[in-house]
Amino acid sequence: MEIFEILDILGTFVFAISGALVAIRKKMDPFGIFIIGFVTAVGGGTLRDILIGQQPVAWMQNMQYIYAIIFAVVLAILFRSKIKYLSKSLFLFDTIGLGIFTIIGTKVGITLNFNPLISIALGTMSGAFGGVIRDILCNDIPIIFRKEIYATASVFGGITFIILNHFNLPQNITYFITVSMVIAIRLIAVKFHLSLPTFYSK
Amino acid sequence: MEIFEILDILGTFVFAISGALVAIRKKMDPFGIFIIGFVTAVGGGTLRDILIGQQPVAWMQNMQYIYAIIFAVVLAILFRSKIKYLSKSLFLFDTIGLGIFTIIGTKVGITLNFNPLISIALGTMSGAFGGVIRDILCNDIPIIFRKEIYATASVFGGITFIILNHFNLPQNITYFITVSMVIAIRLIAVKFHLSLPTFYSK
Amino acid sequence: MEIFEILDILGTFVFAISGALVAIRKKMDPFGIFIIGFVTAVGGGTLRDILIGQQPVAWMQNMQYIYAIIFAVVLAILFRSKIKYLSKSLFLFDTIGLGIFTIIGTKVGITLNFNPLISIALGTMSGAFGGVIRDILCNDIPIIFRKEIYATASVFGGITFIILNHFNLPQNITYFITVSMVIAIRLIAVKFHLSLPTFYSK
Repeated sequence: MEIFEILDILGTFVFAISGALVAIRKKMDPFGIFIIGFVTAVGGGTLRDILIGQQPVAWMQNMQYIYAIIFAVVLAILFRSKIKYLSKSLFLFDTIGLGIFTIIGTKVGITLNFNPLISIALGTMSGAFGGVIRDILCNDIPIIFRKEIYATASVFGGITFIILNHFNLPQNITYFITVSMVIAIRLIAVKFHLSLPTFYSK
Repeated sequence: MEIFEILDILGTFVFAISGALVAIRKKMDPFGIFIIGFVTAVGGGTLRDILIGQQPVAWMQNMQYIYAIIFAVVLAILFRSKIKYLSKSLFLFDTIGLGIFTIIGTKVGITLNFNPLISIALGTMSGAFGGVIRDILCNDIPIIFRKEIYATASVFGGITFIILNHFNLPQNITYFITVSMVIAIRLIAVKFHLSLPTFYSK
Repeated sequence: MEIFEILDILGTFVFAISGALVAIRKKMDPFGIFIIGFVTAVGGGTLRDILIGQQPVAWMQNMQYIYAIIFAVVLAILFRSKIKYLSKSLFLFDTIGLGIFTIIGTKVGITLNFNPLISIALGTMSGAFGGVIRDILCNDIPIIFRKEIYATASVFGGITFIILNHFNLPQNITYFITVSMVIAIRLIAVKFHLSLPTFYSK
């Protein structure tokens, strides 16, 4: 199993947890928790596969996605009372997922010889879409439009990945730096209440 | 015309009625009623076809879907004043549609040799997605997340269908038992106010 | 570059402006404005390409879409204070986009030999879908379900296009008449507060 596949399953796992945590906060029943976990986990990759025409989409062809999601949802339910800092956990899992799926989407774009801008867009959509449908289905304001820097972190991750890809670094290093970049940007942005400057007078 | 095709058109018809009824309740104009009926009727099948890569999607290639939808919408408009028990009719048509599209999605999955779990997921998505976009467009809470057992009925239908499929029953019998199963589960759940157990203390 | 391609880029441009204007009204940050502009501009074409199975979708294969969107968003941001009549500008750009994408979708349907009814549906979905996701993401009531005649204008545009297509007119003339038709219907409808008749007693 290559690092790429491992990352894909890991991203699925952490996004499923993030979805399950939101569903638990909404007091859904176990089945609803599973559905939200599932949709959050496969949403980004499904959009990516459909946009490029790679169907049947990935999760239909490889049971490991399903097992990872079931495992994540069961864990989230079992340890729900242990999760004292629900919103911090949610932030963490969601951000790791964003970083990983940004890489995967961007890399798919590069591999298929799309323009770097398109590859970054594909990375951002893969990274952010799962969370967007999670929030729409749970009737939250989509995370992408909240104050926090979100898609911006993904875009910077994509740019980082494309630049690093031009050097002869081992893939693992490139992956690691990119994910760290996305996580660091979000952490710093949330910590210091940073958001993109706007131009509206108050 | 095979039983499979008849069921597909019938499912389209009943889902179009369910969509039209919701739109009438929202006091939409005739064109809005048609759009909601159309989207509800083709939504699940469109998602299914896109996920497996069977494009152009079914309703673009066979006018019978369009005729069934037009017929359903006209009927719903004509008989709207007769429909004294709007929510009961809505429940009925929606549930029949759920049962039929669960079968069709699951069968497509089996035919394409997907894992049974994937086939059940495909069945549930085919069955539930039309109603989900209907509710999102009409600004209702998606039916799938309301208290009533909905997707759960579809999942049990899918399991039933896969089990029955291992016996040498005539297809008609398998179809009939599965649809009845889905309808029965929903009826009983609504009648006795059953919902999945949750683990939240009150 | 053919007139068809020019129209496609022009439609992308005006829809991107319409999306950016809505995002500015919602006081989003620059990146949010870009995302909404992007989604509004590519939404309809992406849905069209996915329904017919023409993937990778158009905007991934031709950078001119991206450049047109970036240009449109920058313009909208720069001239935001000049736009005194925001809702009138929004109406104008949105309607031109609706007209253009109605044509493109309908023409794609005809070219692929779909039934005229299907081609009109494809045109309406191409024309209206970008605005629908713009409104859902911005938490507005989707324009298609507001009082104004919207999808109806697109449907009439599609019918006009299909009829004109049977005569031996130069394509430019056909395009021009169809777009004018869509714009005229919407202008008149809004001017005289026309809407489709409903049958609800008050």
